[in-house]
Amino acid sequence: MVSQRESRQTPQPKDFERIRNFKGADILSARQFDRENLSVVFEKTETMEGICKKIRQERKFADHLSGYRLATLFYDPSTRTRLSFETAMQNLGGLVISESNTQFSSAIKGELLEDTVRVVELFNTDIIVLRHKEVGSSRIAADAVGIPVINGGDGEGEHPTQALLDLYTIQKECKKIDGITVTMLGDLKYGRTVHSLAYLLSLYDVKINFVSPSFLRMPSDLVEELRRKGVKINEFTSLDEVTEDYDVLYFTRVQKERIKEKEIPAIAANLQGFDQLYALTPEIVAKSRAVIMHPLPRVREIPLEIDNFPQAAYFRQVQNGLYVRMALLGLVLGKI
Amino acid sequence: MVSQRESRQTPQPKDFERIRNFKGADILSARQFDRENLSVVFEKTETMEGICKKIRQERKFADHLSGYRLATLFYDPSTRTRLSFETAMQNLGGLVISESNTQFSSAIKGELLEDTVRVVELFNTDIIVLRHKEVGSSRIAADAVGIPVINGGDGEGEHPTQALLDLYTIQKECKKIDGITVTMLGDLKYGRTVHSLAYLLSLYDVKINFVSPSFLRMPSDLVEELRRKGVKINEFTSLDEVTEDYDVLYFTRVQKERIKEKEIPAIAANLQGFDQLYALTPEIVAKSRAVIMHPLPRVREIPLEIDNFPQAAYFRQVQNGLYVRMALLGLVLGKI
Amino acid sequence: MVSQRESRQTPQPKDFERIRNFKGADILSARQFDRENLSVVFEKTETMEGICKKIRQERKFADHLSGYRLATLFYDPSTRTRLSFETAMQNLGGLVISESNTQFSSAIKGELLEDTVRVVELFNTDIIVLRHKEVGSSRIAADAVGIPVINGGDGEGEHPTQALLDLYTIQKECKKIDGITVTMLGDLKYGRTVHSLAYLLSLYDVKINFVSPSFLRMPSDLVEELRRKGVKINEFTSLDEVTEDYDVLYFTRVQKERIKEKEIPAIAANLQGFDQLYALTPEIVAKSRAVIMHPLPRVREIPLEIDNFPQAAYFRQVQNGLYVRMALLGLVLGKI
Repeated sequence: MVSQRESRQTPQPKDFERIRNFKGADILSARQFDRENLSVVFEKTETMEGICKKIRQERKFADHLSGYRLATLFYDPSTRTRLSFETAMQNLGGLVISESNTQFSSAIKGELLEDTVRVVELFNTDIIVLRHKEVGSSRIAADAVGIPVINGGDGEGEHPTQALLDLYTIQKECKKIDGITVTMLGDLKYGRTVHSLAYLLSLYDVKINFVSPSFLRMPSDLVEELRRKGVKINEFTSLDEVTEDYDVLYFTRVQKERIKEKEIPAIAANLQGFDQLYALTPEIVAKSRAVIMHPLPRVREIPLEIDNFPQAAYFRQVQNGLYVRMALLGLVLGKI
Repeated sequence: MVSQRESRQTPQPKDFERIRNFKGADILSARQFDRENLSVVFEKTETMEGICKKIRQERKFADHLSGYRLATLFYDPSTRTRLSFETAMQNLGGLVISESNTQFSSAIKGELLEDTVRVVELFNTDIIVLRHKEVGSSRIAADAVGIPVINGGDGEGEHPTQALLDLYTIQKECKKIDGITVTMLGDLKYGRTVHSLAYLLSLYDVKINFVSPSFLRMPSDLVEELRRKGVKINEFTSLDEVTEDYDVLYFTRVQKERIKEKEIPAIAANLQGFDQLYALTPEIVAKSRAVIMHPLPRVREIPLEIDNFPQAAYFRQVQNGLYVRMALLGLVLGKI
Repeated sequence: MVSQRESRQTPQPKDFERIRNFKGADILSARQFDRENLSVVFEKTETMEGICKKIRQERKFADHLSGYRLATLFYDPSTRTRLSFETAMQNLGGLVISESNTQFSSAIKGELLEDTVRVVELFNTDIIVLRHKEVGSSRIAADAVGIPVINGGDGEGEHPTQALLDLYTIQKECKKIDGITVTMLGDLKYGRTVHSLAYLLSLYDVKINFVSPSFLRMPSDLVEELRRKGVKINEFTSLDEVTEDYDVLYFTRVQKERIKEKEIPAIAANLQGFDQLYALTPEIVAKSRAVIMHPLPRVREIPLEIDNFPQAAYFRQVQNGLYVRMALLGLVLGKI
């Protein structure tokens, strides 16, 4: 219902207040986090890792969220993110209702997102995870209901739980965040993952290398913001140019569907060579001890033979994602 | 399989027998209800409201339907109705299996609806909620299986649980049904909701105002039937013409997808001005103490600013829907 | 990612080793079974039948798989197979996560199947049931993860749990397998069901009649293999030609969607008369005491009036399928 929405603005970064108390909080943006509340999330994430081990050993799910209900509303499908949240809820003893088929449902009747989430709240639902193509949609949903909303990805906007699991993985793999150098490689323009992760890294004392073709560079306003916050940044167009060693090599997938949606033929034409130029080879891996990360799904950036290298951390990222999401569900429901 | 179905007739109103004993009954039509069995449903619905409060306080789901399984088969998708039934089953301790993607499944292999529901019955399923585009489909399903079938909406046919929750809401908001005046406004021709609700209201001593453009009037045979049953009916083309006060103002959404399916270009052309003519304004609300109801999803009929008026009951309808569905599941399974 | 897959071959029959120990085994092909391990499955299947009866009597699900999680990944939708597995898991006390909408999900981002199943394994998942259009996909999945994978149908490849439930039904209906005669009728070329069932029957002392139009004959290499194994085979083009009595009449649906995908216009043109020629009539049923089986969904092969004949076993097949799947889940998880 466009007319009712016209007066609304896309939420600006400054709109996101730091989380001081997780109970009842919405998780909408990486910008709600600081070192203090990140340390709370990461401490609980470790606890969740222990709970998962115990579940497998004792074959008994936990009961922290017993009597609670999660609704996963995925207007923009993502098997990985949806099943990760649903598993997290099951592991803590809660129930799930789910809609992942919304292109055929209320959405086609022109229903307002606000109405959908209000209705779901009325089904004795305690928390909503929303994924939606429209930037700012999770904020709109959060404002409409009294229960916590977690942003499971809002188009080109944010995907804060991905950023949190990325940072948690870096801390776990490198044993620290302060003092490390992170090299981010690939499509840095449209990849919301690298934007949010770069923001979180700026809360620490880090160096970042951005490696991308000129037409897919990290947005300049974000680069400036990161520099103002004290991050030492270098930009390159090829990984060969990065001569100093780094601790983390973060790959991104080319967001072809987003680039296509935006009808950027010049970029689309340039993408042909991109796959080769910004792909990982066993030679690159052999040269460096850097932890290799990727938000998945990968397409051609990382060949299968890299998976067996010990520094290939992208599947450990997935596992950490489950723990982070368990921690967030428990925290915002005030039960861990 | 058209040839096997040719001999079948669309179920006629007279085909629906009154429910005398809920245990094992199919819920297919509003026409199965009379004042007596409605009072049973409404009494149990109040009990369910108490159970829901207790669930939230004690964080423990009920166990009335523990060991039972519900199958939701939604050939025609509806997030609201499906999640409402699934929540109802979870609240009472039962399990759910679900298919809401059936346009891509057995349906495309030309499978008979009878076979699908028989198969689902054989999966130790205790009750089926079916939503289907075809009028009369829930009757066909109910005839094919030995377990109860609840009609979750059969195209232009019926949506009896919506009618029940509407009537329950009226009783709860007005503290009575006998003696009230209900104004129904909008698309009264294609809106199955208003047809079923008008039928249920005819079991009581009520006045009804029908307000619609001439090309979307309440079907004349239904108007005649209601009059024969003693309902005092007035028809209008604009809400301004309704001079006497009323207790309930029931809005409907224009069923654009149904009108489009039926290829009624004359009506489609007329719909442009419809949105403005049959929309609610704060001025209309301010003039009357009438309870405002809407089956949702709304499109443009009710602006968001009306939501905060105390008489705006459409979200309370949703909540009552959960209670009504819990009551029906419990009643037909003989467990409450 | 075609380039990474090019070096791979479609798994060949000889690749499938016999299952000696069910715990941890993948169920990918009927060719993993011999008389010995089939007798284990069938013994456990009978146990499961008893458990299902107890569940209905006592209204309490079993707890053999309590603390375990099944993921159903249905890239190629099938309501029947998916709900059968999910019900089986629920009956034994386990939890389910599910993706049946994968045409809109990771698949469209070009994700490798290997990556998807690895990710799902990392969600504390204990077993995966995969359905996929691509032949050999379940083998690819099984090789990628450390947890058991059950093939829920891989295109024209195999659907081993269907073959197992078919054989179990034959044993139950005929009280034996050795010594019986089975007549298979319909599309014997593209029907994976009849291929797998014929293979399993070849482990016993049986006669098989194949009845099909010449352009939909059982593949000659399979016929030869069966003959080498000692099966007495006769081929016909019409059921009228089968003069000797038989114990089982196994019907198949014409796989029109597969024939269409393969663009075989000559066959498609011939199919017009097929429906009449290879359909069952009450006269055929009246002439024989043979058990009538069909993998469902039927289209026009079996008229509804046959359903009430006592020898119509196709709905009992469905019910046996639930028991067989419960047995397999319990066996490969080492809990029954």
